[in-house]
Amino acid sequence: MNLEAALYMIPVSISDAAPSDFIPAGNIGIVAGIRHFIVENVRTARRFLRRCDPSFPIGDCTFCELNGHTDPNEIHSFLEPLRKGQPVGMMSEAGCPGVADPGASVAAIAQREGLKTVPLAGPSSILMSLMASGFNGQGFSFNGYLPISDAEKAKRVRELESTAAKTGMTQIFIETPYRNNRTVALLAETLRPDTLLCVASGITDPEKESITTLPARLWKKKIYDYAKTPSIFLISRR
Amino acid sequence: MNLEAALYMIPVSISDAAPSDFIPAGNIGIVAGIRHFIVENVRTARRFLRRCDPSFPIGDCTFCELNGHTDPNEIHSFLEPLRKGQPVGMMSEAGCPGVADPGASVAAIAQREGLKTVPLAGPSSILMSLMASGFNGQGFSFNGYLPISDAEKAKRVRELESTAAKTGMTQIFIETPYRNNRTVALLAETLRPDTLLCVASGITDPEKESITTLPARLWKKKIYDYAKTPSIFLISRR
Repeated sequence: MNLEAALYMIPVSISDAAPSDFIPAGNIGIVAGIRHFIVENVRTARRFLRRCDPSFPIGDCTFCELNGHTDPNEIHSFLEPLRKGQPVGMMSEAGCPGVADPGASVAAIAQREGLKTVPLAGPSSILMSLMASGFNGQGFSFNGYLPISDAEKAKRVRELESTAAKTGMTQIFIETPYRNNRTVALLAETLRPDTLLCVASGITDPEKESITTLPARLWKKKIYDYAKTPSIFLISRR
Repeated sequence: MNLEAALYMIPVSISDAAPSDFIPAGNIGIVAGIRHFIVENVRTARRFLRRCDPSFPIGDCTFCELNGHTDPNEIHSFLEPLRKGQPVGMMSEAGCPGVADPGASVAAIAQREGLKTVPLAGPSSILMSLMASGFNGQGFSFNGYLPISDAEKAKRVRELESTAAKTGMTQIFIETPYRNNRTVALLAETLRPDTLLCVASGITDPEKESITTLPARLWKKKIYDYAKTPSIFLISRR
């Protein structure tokens, strides 16, 4: 256990596929040297650690939870082990910590204090959907969630479409899974007929992965069901 | 060799670190079933395949090169094996194919023809630098290369800074390595003193990795040398 003291940003699985299919073996070696974790959800973090290495001594570890319920004043203390010279691991609920989750705040504290921050490689549904979409990967924006109401959402979709046309940059966003089908219908109605929409659903899931790029007019006729499956939406006007 | 016929987007190493440190074992298993590759550079692609699996039958493989020298009319034919039911692998010079490279054009053809496209997980210096920067990962833009001349570059930097301030979105860009030091100096001069700049250099390189976030005013005083090392630049105004 001579792992260098640093904040390790550890990607976790984004489906039930075997961790070795999408997580580099090197990550497991690094995790083996860590006993302090900052995690979005303790239960899923423990489950991930156990799936990566059934003999990992979870009982010897501390877990600090960082999510919508965390007191902002508490976050600073999560890095106490690192300040004392011990490595700390950070894990999101799924995918890469610090991307589309609250994790960036901890990396920001580490950077401010000059504490070493080390990102590990792993699955990112945002980047993987971009790779497979066929859309511009030399310029792209990730825009997080869209507004919830249909009217506000349609307005935002038109803004993103116009930005995509003006800049050539791929526009990426996400949606709460149970709203996926409604959002695809809204996109098919709202976008210009020839604007390309990619829906990337169930990335890395051996049963459910589906990544489809079509012009909006063809999405109107397509049969789909993305409810309950995490999905990424991408728009291109090139 | 019963790998499903699809276009596999295969991330490759971004440093000389051992592939197993940053490439999932599952990727190697998939590559083992592929004999047709579309690659940015044949020499580095062969080297990567050999490093992943010294017994890989490179002599039995076909390689089509996709880069600035490729005749655009030829690209369509690169997917011929896939149209005949054989898996095709796509590899960039470094990192994730289809992101910050010419690879998206092939994925676009595959999508247009309804050919299955499968992204694999792996290292992306863009995403890994974002994870470690401490910057907003719920909204970010990758802007590719900046203009070359100092005057044009400074203008573009000010635009990106203003966008970062207005939208809160992290602004990411890259530079040709031999211009890195000059670009850091220009950024330190051009950005407002309290704008945060992260320089992420040599990601995954055990000797050279350095990821530093500081306000522009402190970059003016800092000693650095990023020449010859691939680096990512990130700006935040949050």
